[in-house]
Amino acid sequence: MGMHELSIGVDMGGTTLKAAVVRETEIVQRAEPVSTRECSTPQELINCLAERLRTLRQQYPEARAVGMGLPGFVDHAGGKVDSLTNVPGWYDVPIRQILEDVSGLPASVENDANCMAYAEWRLGAAQGMSDVVCLTFGTGVGAGVVSNGQLLRGAMSAAGEIGQVSIDYRGRIGHYGNRGAVEDYIGNNELMREAQILYAASQGEAPIEMETPIHLENAAKVGCPVAQTLWDDAARKLATCLLNCHYILNPQAFVIGGGISKAGELLFAPLRRYLQSQIYPPHFAKLQILPAKLGSDAGIIGSARLALDELP
Amino acid sequence: MGMHELSIGVDMGGTTLKAAVVRETEIVQRAEPVSTRECSTPQELINCLAERLRTLRQQYPEARAVGMGLPGFVDHAGGKVDSLTNVPGWYDVPIRQILEDVSGLPASVENDANCMAYAEWRLGAAQGMSDVVCLTFGTGVGAGVVSNGQLLRGAMSAAGEIGQVSIDYRGRIGHYGNRGAVEDYIGNNELMREAQILYAASQGEAPIEMETPIHLENAAKVGCPVAQTLWDDAARKLATCLLNCHYILNPQAFVIGGGISKAGELLFAPLRRYLQSQIYPPHFAKLQILPAKLGSDAGIIGSARLALDELP
Repeated sequence: MGMHELSIGVDMGGTTLKAAVVRETEIVQRAEPVSTRECSTPQELINCLAERLRTLRQQYPEARAVGMGLPGFVDHAGGKVDSLTNVPGWYDVPIRQILEDVSGLPASVENDANCMAYAEWRLGAAQGMSDVVCLTFGTGVGAGVVSNGQLLRGAMSAAGEIGQVSIDYRGRIGHYGNRGAVEDYIGNNELMREAQILYAASQGEAPIEMETPIHLENAAKVGCPVAQTLWDDAARKLATCLLNCHYILNPQAFVIGGGISKAGELLFAPLRRYLQSQIYPPHFAKLQILPAKLGSDAGIIGSARLALDELP
Repeated sequence: MGMHELSIGVDMGGTTLKAAVVRETEIVQRAEPVSTRECSTPQELINCLAERLRTLRQQYPEARAVGMGLPGFVDHAGGKVDSLTNVPGWYDVPIRQILEDVSGLPASVENDANCMAYAEWRLGAAQGMSDVVCLTFGTGVGAGVVSNGQLLRGAMSAAGEIGQVSIDYRGRIGHYGNRGAVEDYIGNNELMREAQILYAASQGEAPIEMETPIHLENAAKVGCPVAQTLWDDAARKLATCLLNCHYILNPQAFVIGGGISKAGELLFAPLRRYLQSQIYPPHFAKLQILPAKLGSDAGIIGSARLALDELP
């Protein structure tokens, strides 16, 4: 089924839209990025995207399909955006038809985190697995689930919103009014806010630079007890979220990428410890916790692959 | 596919094994129950079951298949019990082959709560849905998940363990060492323990009888504020568990049966309220919360139907 064919992947984020011609996991040709914020309507963004797609098609006329990931609720089967989380104006947009019209290629549309998960499953860290949960950290927590050898979409294209999983029924109120969403504890901003509070409360001094998880990572690695406590606490909270996925979905693996996952063993060692102590041992023994393989291009790679996989 | 054919369903619980000839949702003929506790080895229980199956087959030779639900980790594809939660001695038992040998019929084996969910999905409250979560309350919380039109089993036959979903990352330590499992807050015993603590702390007197959720239900219905607080609190905790299922699986419906669900609106009204305030409104609008239809025979009905559905 055309394993080495070319297709075009589009990854729309809250700030940037990226498009590229892709072969397997290789980015063959990138288009100039589009600033999502500078487009005030879906039509403006679509005009910019149409221009990028025409250029890519001229350069690679052999590209056979186009796939696009969007940050919100995307009805894959119906080919439309229901709504986007942080981009206003996107309601009931028949984006698949629009993509086919402007590109002249068969198109496929999906949630952006689902595209990332699809890439890791088809071509990355989770290749060949039947059941897997992929997470990527950033401002929030993006995630996608493969269950029984299929991308899990749910009844209203809203499955896999793992950043919204509650770890505390009395916790803080989040994006949808829901209490204790894990993303509100271990997203980049929340983690740094927590760091500032802990440093203020401790007698010790905060390192000079303490603005991103990388600073926190460096502080922990040179032995700062405040930073170490913070990483352990983040691992504990993330473990509870993954436990919930385990007990509901029973995946073979968790694939974890982006943001705080770059801290490596600082996060993964306590994470494994918290999971091991809370999962039936024969099940923990078979559960893999893997770093993501495809990095920040996973969304492009996944949307491009999905479009190719769905060609008739 | 033989919608009105007969098959035999077997439902093994922690205390009782029940078997019956089933047509659709109708129990055509029950066998004498077996006390699970009086059988000290799997072989003893299998001997008792074999005798029941022979009798049922003699009475209904037209029964075409036998299905069995067991309380623990059951490898459906491999046809064996990995382990049972509260019944000692059941490790790596090739139960499907045993059933086929003793009954002379094609057999199918599955987790007991999955059988209940299968029954509600195929023949009960969730008929025709593609994505549904079924829960049944008792000493613990049993559950099964249908996702994308298939029973969700996971990588190690351990999916759908929704009673183990954590609602508090700092909560009490449960069966698998896991913290905050919802079953440890709203199982019958835990609920009544909570009731005793609250009544002891309150100035008011506990009603004369306060031993099961039915007493708690009666107290709430006659306006006892302690009991009403308890129901509201149970609904709030259950809502957090269902929220987690919603954000991970995005089902069309939750089907809820057994134990505390019998309290009806006392539970369902605050449950709906807590869910509504914590789910994106267009998604909540399409989410159904339904009482189970098939009652305490759902396990028998589901295992009998599963066996029939899997005939070649």
